[in-house]
Formats: sequence, structure tokens, C-alpha cells
Amino acid sequence: MDFAYSPKVQELRERVTAFMDTYVYPAEAVFERQVAEGDRWQPTAIMEELKAKAKAEGLWNLFLPESDYGAGLTNMEYAPLAEIMGRSLMGSEPFNCSAPDTGNMETLVRYATEAQKKQWLEPLLSGEIRSAFAMTEPGVASSDATNMEARAVREGDEWVINGRKWWTSGACDPRCKIMIFMGLTNPDGPRHQQHSMILVPTDTPGVKILRPLPVFGYDDAPHGHAEVVFENVRVPYENVLLGEGRGFEIAQGRLGPGRIHHCMRSIGMAERALELMCKRAASRTAFGKPLARLGGNIDHIANSRIEINQARLLTLNAAYMMDTVGNKIAQSEIAQIKVVAPNVALSVIDRAIQIHGGAGVSNDTPLAYFYAMQRTLRLADGPDEVHRAAIGKYEIGKYVPREAMKASR
Amino acid sequence: MDFAYSPKVQELRERVTAFMDTYVYPAEAVFERQVAEGDRWQPTAIMEELKAKAKAEGLWNLFLPESDYGAGLTNMEYAPLAEIMGRSLMGSEPFNCSAPDTGNMETLVRYATEAQKKQWLEPLLSGEIRSAFAMTEPGVASSDATNMEARAVREGDEWVINGRKWWTSGACDPRCKIMIFMGLTNPDGPRHQQHSMILVPTDTPGVKILRPLPVFGYDDAPHGHAEVVFENVRVPYENVLLGEGRGFEIAQGRLGPGRIHHCMRSIGMAERALELMCKRAASRTAFGKPLARLGGNIDHIANSRIEINQARLLTLNAAYMMDTVGNKIAQSEIAQIKVVAPNVALSVIDRAIQIHGGAGVSNDTPLAYFYAMQRTLRLADGPDEVHRAAIGKYEIGKYVPREAMKASR
Amino acid sequence: MDFAYSPKVQELRERVTAFMDTYVYPAEAVFERQVAEGDRWQPTAIMEELKAKAKAEGLWNLFLPESDYGAGLTNMEYAPLAEIMGRSLMGSEPFNCSAPDTGNMETLVRYATEAQKKQWLEPLLSGEIRSAFAMTEPGVASSDATNMEARAVREGDEWVINGRKWWTSGACDPRCKIMIFMGLTNPDGPRHQQHSMILVPTDTPGVKILRPLPVFGYDDAPHGHAEVVFENVRVPYENVLLGEGRGFEIAQGRLGPGRIHHCMRSIGMAERALELMCKRAASRTAFGKPLARLGGNIDHIANSRIEINQARLLTLNAAYMMDTVGNKIAQSEIAQIKVVAPNVALSVIDRAIQIHGGAGVSNDTPLAYFYAMQRTLRLADGPDEVHRAAIGKYEIGKYVPREAMKASR
Amino acid sequence: MDFAYSPKVQELRERVTAFMDTYVYPAEAVFERQVAEGDRWQPTAIMEELKAKAKAEGLWNLFLPESDYGAGLTNMEYAPLAEIMGRSLMGSEPFNCSAPDTGNMETLVRYATEAQKKQWLEPLLSGEIRSAFAMTEPGVASSDATNMEARAVREGDEWVINGRKWWTSGACDPRCKIMIFMGLTNPDGPRHQQHSMILVPTDTPGVKILRPLPVFGYDDAPHGHAEVVFENVRVPYENVLLGEGRGFEIAQGRLGPGRIHHCMRSIGMAERALELMCKRAASRTAFGKPLARLGGNIDHIANSRIEINQARLLTLNAAYMMDTVGNKIAQSEIAQIKVVAPNVALSVIDRAIQIHGGAGVSNDTPLAYFYAMQRTLRLADGPDEVHRAAIGKYEIGKYVPREAMKASR
Repeated sequence: MDFAYSPKVQELRERVTAFMDTYVYPAEAVFERQVAEGDRWQPTAIMEELKAKAKAEGLWNLFLPESDYGAGLTNMEYAPLAEIMGRSLMGSEPFNCSAPDTGNMETLVRYATEAQKKQWLEPLLSGEIRSAFAMTEPGVASSDATNMEARAVREGDEWVINGRKWWTSGACDPRCKIMIFMGLTNPDGPRHQQHSMILVPTDTPGVKILRPLPVFGYDDAPHGHAEVVFENVRVPYENVLLGEGRGFEIAQGRLGPGRIHHCMRSIGMAERALELMCKRAASRTAFGKPLARLGGNIDHIANSRIEINQARLLTLNAAYMMDTVGNKIAQSEIAQIKVVAPNVALSVIDRAIQIHGGAGVSNDTPLAYFYAMQRTLRLADGPDEVHRAAIGKYEIGKYVPREAMKASR
Repeated sequence: MDFAYSPKVQELRERVTAFMDTYVYPAEAVFERQVAEGDRWQPTAIMEELKAKAKAEGLWNLFLPESDYGAGLTNMEYAPLAEIMGRSLMGSEPFNCSAPDTGNMETLVRYATEAQKKQWLEPLLSGEIRSAFAMTEPGVASSDATNMEARAVREGDEWVINGRKWWTSGACDPRCKIMIFMGLTNPDGPRHQQHSMILVPTDTPGVKILRPLPVFGYDDAPHGHAEVVFENVRVPYENVLLGEGRGFEIAQGRLGPGRIHHCMRSIGMAERALELMCKRAASRTAFGKPLARLGGNIDHIANSRIEINQARLLTLNAAYMMDTVGNKIAQSEIAQIKVVAPNVALSVIDRAIQIHGGAGVSNDTPLAYFYAMQRTLRLADGPDEVHRAAIGKYEIGKYVPREAMKASR
Repeated sequence: MDFAYSPKVQELRERVTAFMDTYVYPAEAVFERQVAEGDRWQPTAIMEELKAKAKAEGLWNLFLPESDYGAGLTNMEYAPLAEIMGRSLMGSEPFNCSAPDTGNMETLVRYATEAQKKQWLEPLLSGEIRSAFAMTEPGVASSDATNMEARAVREGDEWVINGRKWWTSGACDPRCKIMIFMGLTNPDGPRHQQHSMILVPTDTPGVKILRPLPVFGYDDAPHGHAEVVFENVRVPYENVLLGEGRGFEIAQGRLGPGRIHHCMRSIGMAERALELMCKRAASRTAFGKPLARLGGNIDHIANSRIEINQARLLTLNAAYMMDTVGNKIAQSEIAQIKVVAPNVALSVIDRAIQIHGGAGVSNDTPLAYFYAMQRTLRLADGPDEVHRAAIGKYEIGKYVPREAMKASR
Repeated sequence: MDFAYSPKVQELRERVTAFMDTYVYPAEAVFERQVAEGDRWQPTAIMEELKAKAKAEGLWNLFLPESDYGAGLTNMEYAPLAEIMGRSLMGSEPFNCSAPDTGNMETLVRYATEAQKKQWLEPLLSGEIRSAFAMTEPGVASSDATNMEARAVREGDEWVINGRKWWTSGACDPRCKIMIFMGLTNPDGPRHQQHSMILVPTDTPGVKILRPLPVFGYDDAPHGHAEVVFENVRVPYENVLLGEGRGFEIAQGRLGPGRIHHCMRSIGMAERALELMCKRAASRTAFGKPLARLGGNIDHIANSRIEINQARLLTLNAAYMMDTVGNKIAQSEIAQIKVVAPNVALSVIDRAIQIHGGAGVSNDTPLAYFYAMQRTLRLADGPDEVHRAAIGKYEIGKYVPREAMKASR
């Protein structure tokens, strides 16, 4: 066992850190101001500047593994970089590494035709356009993905799509030109072969962006989490990715790396919250002492450090397993980090808020916004409960055949 | 011991509940729309309508105890009504029972001159104007209230006030005509006799409302939590309440009832969250079962019920003690509810969010907003930590003289 | 609402407290020594002395309500006395108020024939003999009481009993002369009408006390928690209480008061642990300060106070409901205290252990023993999980008919 | 980074696992019986048999690193083996790897004279004798080790030792022939240079083993945790290890590896508890379903898996740091595992107890004993609180010089 980062990773960590220090953190206030002052649903100048700089430095598309297009890092190698980017809410986009584009680009690399790649993947890789992923629906419990009801029906060489999606993140951004829609195409198939993924250009007639959904009062502009209605939306039949009824198959493939990315960003956010907490605890005084010397504050800092370190190791180990034995064998580990990382981040951020007093819940620190973002991650891609159930069943399965448990239902 | 509500309280509970059902809950969406569509920093028409209705029904100023002006309810009697009002973020204002007006009115009843009562108390009682309380400061740890640095210096028969306050709730509302400013007047006095409370009309030259502070992205318009600068603000010397250096003395008096009110509202909010959680758990289906039958969801509901019941009993007991043996003897109990109520509310609301999925963090339910509001209550009027320290010291004081502990410092 | 103890209760509290201070606490070390030095499965002299004293002072059978035999206290009135007795592991027996005798006596008062009362109830009431309750079985999950498999089959005018029970507390004590056996008599009846309660004298041939079960290494001598085998045990048919198949009906009736008693004893134990914790925190020094001034210790004390106060109020309210509206309507409240009280006691005791260091886990303080006893109470009379499920279902039942939930199963 | 065990470690893991499966687990009941039936303070035959077998298989003294005497494994390599041994309370001794002998042997390897090594180290290494470590004292808070008051005074070429120690584990075993005493020798030195470690043969006149201290009712026979009085105990001056006043220096050195060992054993114990929990959950039925399908049980299993995995990775990483950058740089990581491992083990064991019902708190499973043992580890070698404080201070020290924090005290 060797817990040290490789020299290659270490060098990239230093470059990404330097970029964050030099450009991203100082840009946060600028970004906030540009969003507040102009039309909040237009891209900001500052973000485009940061993208140009990162691209010029070669810190671009680092997320993309095993392909002609990307940096060729393993999950294990990219994970520590995602952590650093995650320290700022602005952090991933400058490097063209933000969700849901990363997952969409990976999907396109694997399953798109050459024409589709030319049309959508290339401008995504170059950062000219953005994309969205339309899966979650307001009308059904998304914890059970097979509940999805939005329909795509084949008519000749076209799909006709109808339904309602929400939490289609990024769809409010005018740069969002392409969506991957997931919906019911083969209702008579086996439970996990009824749904397909279909490319839907955002400007197709019948696609209606209804509203941005706020998260604890934050609209996340200009990105935005959209509610979208599809009314008789028609796209070519070949826009279906991989094949009819294979939506869940694709979903499985994109989930693993996506979780590593999200979790490492969560850990980065937790690290930044811990840093802010320490600095506040050392500099603020009450009852004649720095806060760090009062009551259980030092314990909160210690617990935060412990929890973050554990979450990071768990995530890196999951990445290692994905790289070495594959997503399927790593399924329990991937579910574990999905539960741990946002919960740890929330705990740490909440403690950091508490030690900041009123400043912590306002926008004078990034903490409240961090909290809101992390809170959604206990729901996105399946709520904690679904993942815990999977982990638990896997564990019991070591001793009892799964059929035995089912039979006794 | 008798844990039943008196007939008088029971009757009032029914009337307030009916008012909430008939008028307030249906008005929530209207209020939200009116705020969003117009100038968000202007009072809404719907709130004024509700106030007129409640006033007409005699459900008005119920909070105000022992005086010629109010309903004459004890803390014990008012508490169950505050709970019901607290179920809606709109709920207290229609009854003219919202903070910080309630505490300010109580303070004026006790300490204002007849002229001051005429000028400020009467329009407050009638719901024509609103008020603010300027105590917390951005530059110092407010957990130690003696840190307050904003100064009021006597010059002849005037006070000259300089300093910066924040979390001056309600000061963004144009109806807010009067502030109670608390600041340093006697820096050479004993530690708790250096500060005074002074009436400052909002339109006094030099009073500058800088900005509304958001809470997790919510601006709480048109109420708003203001950052306020006082620059050479001059008010008459007699605007000092009770006397120079007696600010903490007044603060102590207003804190007790204020905490009961806040805590019962927190409990009301928790009850509403639990109700929403139960309904969602029973009506939403995943994996072929209602959510209530999946995993630990039923436990979350049970724990919520248990925690709420305990918090309510603790708060009612504190109210009972305030009414019978006084705030001083009840000091540990008052501190206890200050810790318990918002934390219980946060737990319950968080579970309710989780079971609602994405709807829970958006504005399609009141839950995320509830969460944000309750989170501030772990900080307002002193963070949890300060209250726990007080409770703990009080407890040890049963066995060891407090001087013994101090000496060993 | 009135949260004060009545003068009658207050007076009894003072008398019981005085008895504990004067006689019981000083006897603890004596008791431990007498058990350790002699045959640990024989009654101790010191306990008999305490019983004589309490009887002489009229502090005897206080638990027994509404009957010719007892003190006539309501649950509400007895509860605060049970708390005080619970502060010592020796505490209830001196007052003839210890489990399982209390529940057994109540059952006999209600359901025994006059002859049975003469034979068993009277010597129990006078403290001459003790009793046991044989319900839990090693072979099945006791969380679902209908699992009980031990059989009683009628043969002529006799029952023939076969089966294995454990956690038959008190059966190791030679004073234990009578057991209430609960077992399967009517396997073809409806689910809750298959079991009966039958009086079985301990010396009946075929009753074999196999072994005392230790609890975290404690054998609880001379009381003991027995594993008992019934091999062709024959008792008269009339020994069945209330009637065939009515075991659960009786169980329901005895459970309510039993839970109040147990919970209040748990609270008493928690109070004593908190007292020990405070004294230790104030008197022990590390790093130049009393422990109370180090890190989060004061928070632990505060949280303990808060949790205890809440648990007590919840339990008293449940007692109040039992007295005023009956066990059936109070069913959720009774389940709530069953979950809360031992868990609160465990938390408080665990913190007290921690602040005592090694002394806390040894027998130099009563804390480790307290912990072991309270830990069993999360299992006895149904595990937490069963009660939480009941509370949760009751809560959802406020909004959805229970049938609706079942149908969707 | 490489999270896989090396082939060497993997092979040893398999051999140790096979030994546990074949010999140790089946011996547990035998051991318990032999202790119960004979003189419980004499070594058991079964343990000596196991030792002979393990020695014959070369699974002996695996703990001992970098020296002529031992297996030469790094901390990183030994850790996974300690985990497997820790799964049984009998598990480490068969391999001659149990505390406190391991730490004592390491200390002797480093600091003893050749004569001392011959006399004590060799029989320890061969498993002929055992040893104890006398540090903790009943009269002072051991969380602050500088509190130690037991004195050793030089008189000519002898030390004269007086004082009282407790939790001197293993001293009740007649095989315990040598103790390392730590006490005050240089009271006028700087705070961490006042104490020395001195070899004291157990049979030296004046050494009195007063009593075994129970842990939650378990006496841990024949090992035992002794209270020991030293009355004018005389040993040669050269028995001081390393030099006068260097006790803490030695303690620091032995603590690191000792913590890795303890923590990995804790994790092994947690793994066994989880295995028992899974098997019980799958095989026991209530309400017509296996327990695993009821309420939140599956979540408890999932959380246990997550917590164990995190604790293991954290511990392995600490071991890696110790091996690569040294104990001093790894100090925060070592403190972190000291907090995490026993707390995780306690959580998992407690959940396993709960799912076992009454069997869980009795001795029919190893769970209650496990719990008792792990509970002491939150106190031994410094309570959680001390380690959290160290971690927290270290963290703040990243941003603020430690002197700055001290000055403001």
C-alpha cells in the first residue's frame, strides 16, 4: 500500500492550486457582482476569462479519461484535482470540468456517432457550449429511477417526446445547447430496459424551460436548475444513444466517475469551510479568549479534520477500485462515498457557520451557499436512503444469497 | 400536575387555528407572489388584509401580558398560540405578534415615557408602524454581548451615536419607523453597566440602511435583516430607556418572553414540517411501496414526534416557571429551550426535506425557507454554545460554589 | 397547565428522598459486600433490614393504584417517587416496588381468584416472597411477541407446560415462589388471542432454572435473569389468568404502568449519573484547571440536564394521560417514553463514565452497572425499533387511514 | 497511490485468518470454560496450546519491527494482521502479540541493557513470561499525564519506589514477571522531564497487587487490570530505562505503534460484530420478515460498513505515515485514529447488540464483552478529549502560530 500521490498528480495538484489561488478565489466576488448587476441568466465575462486562462495553461478537460480527447487521467489521478476545484463554487467551470457537462461528454465519447460528436462533443470540449441532463421528474419519487414517466415514442424515423422534467441543471444558461433526455421508450421491457437516452437540442420546438428552481433561496444563476416541459418534441431516431432500452446501462457507466467527482468536490468544499473555521476561531475573541479556546470549539475543529480525512480516503479508495477492478465490483464503495461525502461536508460547513455567527448564514462567507449546494447532493443521483439500502444488502449478501432474502419478503 | 390546556387557552387555540386555516395558509402563495412581482421592499397588500381581519376578530396583540394595552395572557397561555402562528412564516404578523415588534412593544410599555408611548407604542400596537432592534455588530463576536462597540456619547441634551450594526431585522421595511439602539455609553462602568438602550427614529439623519443581509439566499423581504450605519446620529437625551448603563437590565427582561415566543414558533414550524413529512411519506411511492414503508423513514417520523413533544413540554414548563417563580430562577430552563427548540426544528425540517427530495430544497414547499430561518435561531440572541455554557455552570453550581470554579481558572 | 407537584406528592418525595439519603445510599457498599462474600444467590441481610425500615415508615407498596391493597397513588403521583428510588440499583426493593413484582402484583390484584390472592398476592405484598414473569424466549425474535412458542396444553383439569424461556428476571432468587408463565395455548386463534398467562409455582416439578444470564458481565445476584426450562410442568387449569387466549390483553394492561415505572427509574439513574459527573468535573484537575473548564465538558453537562428534563416531562405527561384518558389513547406517548428514557439515561451515564476515566468503567462508581442495566431496557418489553415503528404509524395515521397504508404493502 | 495489500501481507493475512478459523474461534468457548471452572487467576491450558501452535507455524512476534528479534514488518504491514487477531478477545496472545507485552518488548529492545534483555526480553519473546506497564494512578486525572505522583527516589545505587497505580493490565496473571513502572523522579525538571521508566520485577518486596479492577462486570481473568501499591520497593539504579527524566520520551516512542495495534484490533472487533449482525439480521424473523427487512436495520448495517471502512483506511494511512515520515509528523493522524477506532467499534457493536436482543447483552455472543473492552479504549492512553484537543490545536496551527494562541490565553 502506498498512500502518497504520484509525482504526476502532485505536480498537477500544485498547478491547479496555484491557478485557484491566483485567479479563481479573487474572481469569486467579481462573479457574484457580475451576476447580480446584469441579467443574471447570461454568462459572465469573468468566467470566460478564467476559462481562457486555464485552457492556455493546459488545465483543461482534466476529467476525461481513456480517450483521444482528454487528459487521460485515471479516476484516482483526477480525484485530487476535483477536490481542489471544488473548494470554490466557481471552481470547476474554468477548467471545463463541471457537471453535468463532464458526464455528458463522457457519454458522448462512448456512445455518440461521429456526426453527433462533431456537432456536440467538440464544442463542449472546447468550452463553447454547455449541456444538460434531463432525468428527474416532479411527479414521481426519483429515488426509484424506474418510476420515470416522460415518454419518447417512435414515429417513423423520429422520436416524439412528451413529459416533464426538473432539476435539469444548467438548462437555464443560454450556452446550454444540448440535452440528454432520459425517458420511457419501451414500457413493456424488463424493468431496467424500458428507458432510453436521447439527444435533444435545447432549441428544438416544444422544449420549454419553465423556471429555475431555487435551492434554499439560491437560483445558482446563470447555471440554474430548470423545470422543463417537453411537448411533442421531435428529434431524429438516431439521436438515441447506444440503443433503445439501454438508458440504465449508460446511466450505470456515467454514475461511477460522476460520484467520484462530486464527492471530491464536496471534500474540497469541506476543506475550505474548515480553513475558514480555523481562521475565525483563532482571530475572533469573546470573553477575553479566541473562540478556539472556548467550550467545545476545538472539538468541532478536530472532528471536522477527522471526518474529512476519512471521507477523502474512502473516496480515493473507491476511485482506486474503479480503476483497478471496475465499477461493478466497486459498487458498494461507490455507494458509500455517495452517502459519506455530502454528509461530512454538511457537518463541517454547519460547524463553520456556527463559529461565524451571523456572517455564516449570510453571503459574506461562501458557507451558506456551500451548505445549500451540498444539501442537494444528499438527494441528487439517489437519496442517501437508496444508497444505504444498497450497501446494506450487499453486506448481507456476503453471508446469505440475495434470493433467500427476497424469497422471505 | 395538570398537563391540559385551560378552557380559555383551548378556545383561543381553536380560534387562532381556524384563522390560520381560513386565511393564513391560503395567503402564503399570494404573499410570495406579491413580494416577487412588485418592489420586494414594500409591504404587501395581502398582509394588510390579514391584519385587518385578525384585528376585527380580536386576535390582536395576544402576546402582551400584564398591561393596559394587551390581551393579558401569561407566558404559559400565550405560548400555545405562538406555536400555531409559527406554523407559517407569515403567521405572526397578521396577529401583530411578530418579532422584533413584540419585544420592542414590551420594552416601551415598561420603560417609555408617556410621550414616547404616544408617539411609538400606540402606532405599533395598532399595527400602523413597525420597529427594529439594533444590537448585533459585524465587527465583534456577539456571543459576548459586552463586546458591543457602537458608541452613544452625550453632548448637552443629546446623544451622538456612531457605529455599525447588522441583523437589525425589519429595518428594510419602510413601515419601520423606530429603532431601539443598544450601544456603549458608559465605557468605564462595570462590565454589564456600560451599555444603554436608546430610541432612534429610523428617519433621523445619519441612519443609513446599507443592505439587507440574505439568509441562505433568502432576503426575507419586505422585512429584511439590515446592516445599518449610524453616523453622528443625534437624538434627545431622554430617548435613553430606563437610564444610562441599564441596557443589559432591559435586555434580560425582554429576553425571557422573547425566547418563549421564538421557541414556540420553532415548534410550530417543526409540527408543520412533520405534517408535510407524514403526508408525503404516505402518498409517494417507490419500489412499489409508500415511502413510509421503506427503510428507516418511519423511524424518522417517530423521532420527530418524540423530539417535538419533548421540546414543547420543556418550553411550556419554562413559561410556567417564568410566570410563577420569575425569569431569574428560570434562567437555566430558558437557556435550555433556546438550545433545544431550533435544533429540534432543524432536525425535523431536515428529515422532511429529505423525504420530499428535490421539492424539499426548492420553494415548492416551505421547508427550505423554514430551515434557513431556524438556522439563524441557533445564532440569534446568543449562539447555542453560550447557552450551554450557562446551563452547565448552573448545574455545577448546585454542588460547588461558582467562586470556587472561577478561582481555579 | 400546572407543572408543580401536588403537596401530597411533594411530601412523599421528601420522605422517600430522606429514606434514600439515610438508609439506601449508605447500604450500597454493604449490599455489594454481602453479595460478594457469601453465596451470591441468597438474599442479603441488609436488604431485609431496609425493607423492614421502609415498611415501618409506611413507604411500602407505593406503586399500587386503585385497589384495597395499595397506596392509591395515580401513575402521575407515583412516577416522581419511582424516579427517586431509581437513583440506586438497590432502591426499589426496600419499598417493595421492584420489577417484576410490581407488574405481577397488579396482575394478581386484577385477575387472580381469591384463593390465588391469598396464596400469592398477600405474601408478595408483605415482601415475604418474590415472583417472576416468564415471557421472552431464546429461540425466537421477541420483538414480535406473537412469536412465542412455549406451549401449555390442557389435559383434563390441568395445564401441561413445555418450553424454554429466558430473561425471567428474579427467578434465581430463592425467595421467588411464583412465576407468571405466558405461552401458546390456542394456536388456532386470531394472532393476539393465542397466548395465555398461567400461574406456575417455582417449585413445581419440571421447572428448571438453568442459569443466570449475565448482563455485560454482571449477574445481578441474588436477583438474576434466568434461563428456565419447563418440562411437562403440570398446574391446575384454574391457574390461567382472566381466561384462555387473553394473555396479550393482560400484557397490554400491565405494560403501561410498568413503562412509567421503568422510565422514571431510568431518569433517576440519569440524575444520579449527572450529579456524579458534576462533582467529578468540579473536583478533578488536569492541565491546571478543573475538568469542568476543559473542552466540551460543560456542554456534556448541559446536554445531560436538557435531555433529562425533557425525558422527565415526557414521562410525566404520559402518566398524566394514562390517568386521565387511559392507556389506549396514550399508546403513542407510552411508546415514546419507552424509547426516550433508557436512551437518555445511557447518554448521560456514558458521559459520566468518560469524565470519571477508569473509575467510570470499574465498580468504584455505580456507573458501569447503571449502563449495563439501562442497556437492557432498550431491549426489554420490545426493542426501540418496535416502539418507533408504532409511534411512526400512529403519526401517519393522523393523515391517512391505516388500512390505506396496509393495502399498499 | 496503491490501496492494495502487498503479496507478502496478503499471504500473512491468509495464514493468520486460517489460524483464527481453525484454532482460535473454536477455542473461545473452551477458554471461557477453563477460566470459569478452575482458579480464574491461573493461565489456561488452551491458551498455551494455541501459543505452541502459532509459534510452530511461524506466526509469532509479528508485531516487532526493525530489530534482530522480530518479524521485521513495518507498521503498515503488521496492521492488517492485528486487525484479524483483534476479531477475538483471545486473538493476540496466541501470536505473542498482545498488549501490554508488545509495547514493553519494543521498549526493552530499544532501551534495555544486554543483561536486562537477557533476563526479561528473551522470555517475553519466547512467550514464557508476561509483563505489565504501571502508569495510570487512581488519585489524579490521567488525561494529564504530568499529574503522575508515584515517586521513585534514588538512594545510593537503588531506586526506592512508593505510590499507587491502577489499570496495570496483566499484573494479576502469575506469569507477569516484570513491570515497567513510570513515576516521578525529577520533580524539579521541566514539565515533561520529571518522570522516568524503571524496571520492577513483580516479585520485588513491597509490590502489592491489591485487586483486579472489573470493566463493566468483566474481570478479564486471568489477565486482569490491577490496582498495585508500591511500598518502599527497591530496585537497582540501572533499572531506569534510557535515563532519568526521559519517561515521556520513551512513552512517545511506544505510543505510536501501540495505537496502530489497538486501533486495528478495534476494527477487527467491529468487523466481527458486523458479521454477527448481518447473520442475525438475515436469519431471525419477526412480523413475517427477516430482521434485515425491517425498519432501519439495513441502514445500521450500511452505516457500520461505512464507518469501519473509513476507520481502517485512516489507521492504515497513519501507519503509512509513521513508516515513511515518522511519528512526529504523523502526530495528528495518530491522535485521529485513537479517537475514531474505539468509537466506531462501539457504534457497530452496539448496533449488533441491539439486533441480537437479549443474547447481545449476555455472554452468549462476544458482543457485550467486546463493548466493555472497547469502552475502556476511549479512556486508556488518554481520553478522546485530550486527543481531540491535540488534533484541533494542530489544525489551527496551520494558520496561526501556536504561541499566538497561548499568549491570548
